[in-house]
Amino acid sequence: MDTNILAGQINFVLEADKLKTIVRNTLLTDRSRLENAAEHSWHVALTAMVFFDSASAEGMDLHRILKMLLVHDLVEIDSGDLLCYHTDQISAQKEKERKAAERIFGMLTGGQGDKMRQLWQEFEALETPESRFANAVDRLQPLLQAIRTDGQTWRQHGIRKDQVVQRMQPIRTALPHLWGYVLEMIDNAAEAGNLVKS
Amino acid sequence: MDTNILAGQINFVLEADKLKTIVRNTLLTDRSRLENAAEHSWHVALTAMVFFDSASAEGMDLHRILKMLLVHDLVEIDSGDLLCYHTDQISAQKEKERKAAERIFGMLTGGQGDKMRQLWQEFEALETPESRFANAVDRLQPLLQAIRTDGQTWRQHGIRKDQVVQRMQPIRTALPHLWGYVLEMIDNAAEAGNLVKS
Repeated sequence: MDTNILAGQINFVLEADKLKTIVRNTLLTDRSRLENAAEHSWHVALTAMVFFDSASAEGMDLHRILKMLLVHDLVEIDSGDLLCYHTDQISAQKEKERKAAERIFGMLTGGQGDKMRQLWQEFEALETPESRFANAVDRLQPLLQAIRTDGQTWRQHGIRKDQVVQRMQPIRTALPHLWGYVLEMIDNAAEAGNLVKS
Repeated sequence: MDTNILAGQINFVLEADKLKTIVRNTLLTDRSRLENAAEHSWHVALTAMVFFDSASAEGMDLHRILKMLLVHDLVEIDSGDLLCYHTDQISAQKEKERKAAERIFGMLTGGQGDKMRQLWQEFEALETPESRFANAVDRLQPLLQAIRTDGQTWRQHGIRKDQVVQRMQPIRTALPHLWGYVLEMIDNAAEAGNLVKS
């Protein structure tokens, strides 16, 4: 075993620990605090397992979906989490994330970092069925928590119903059997005043 | 789509959120707080991805390892996390976990809960190569964080070197190329007074 490879792997694993301090805009269901990006990554991977069986997932590779979801937020160690409705800041955020990917995945030598970066790029590009499925569950899980917590963070940021419907579009194609239910939840949230009607 | 199946899946995903409030005895590397079981589950799955390539993992199924690690701590929603060195309490804990598995995986209908419970049982039984590998990374990740934080939680609980060596045994067989390094880290921790010499 090459000690450089091993040292890189151990440094990478310890670096990843920092994702536990990156705070997102989703409340836990007990409303005790905001979620962090590490526990979110776990939760979306579990959500993928749950909905994969019932999904229009014919021929899809759950293994790659899980690997994508496990690495999809690592870049936020450097870039932080951006509220997904701040669309004006997305291009600056993408540049920060690109640099972060270079630094963080670059800690792994022997081609291993490249393979992980490719998983992250696949997730971001939304071009493969697996990445579309992964993105759909990445949107579903925070939606479920927002609904369960009466849209508290939506209300704080004055989020509109049309913004959420737009954000949830990957669910429409990757988890079509959930789409009606998702729209109904969003409608009810707007009716209850938890989203601005648009 | 059967609405009962869908309702069960959504309830299960929201129930899983509670794992984010189950506190473990491992410090984050920045020492700001103790880790929770949800972010730990993510971190060990990522650690499995990292060390799988280099491991004696010939013929092993990483996909099943990842799925096992994603569900392995869900029972702690009901049972809580037990300090792994409290060996006198293990049999009571196992009974609590068995009941928790029945309740939590039972939220999923149509055989899906059974499949997840089987993954948890496989992890616990340590009989398959995949479960031994999963257990090895489940021990390696908190070890790395304990070493990085100068054994602060070990010192709080008066943990002995021989207890840690015993706890790390799954690494010896599943990640043999790491074993020498692991023993060296533990030796150094004992020399530094972060573990009680035994």
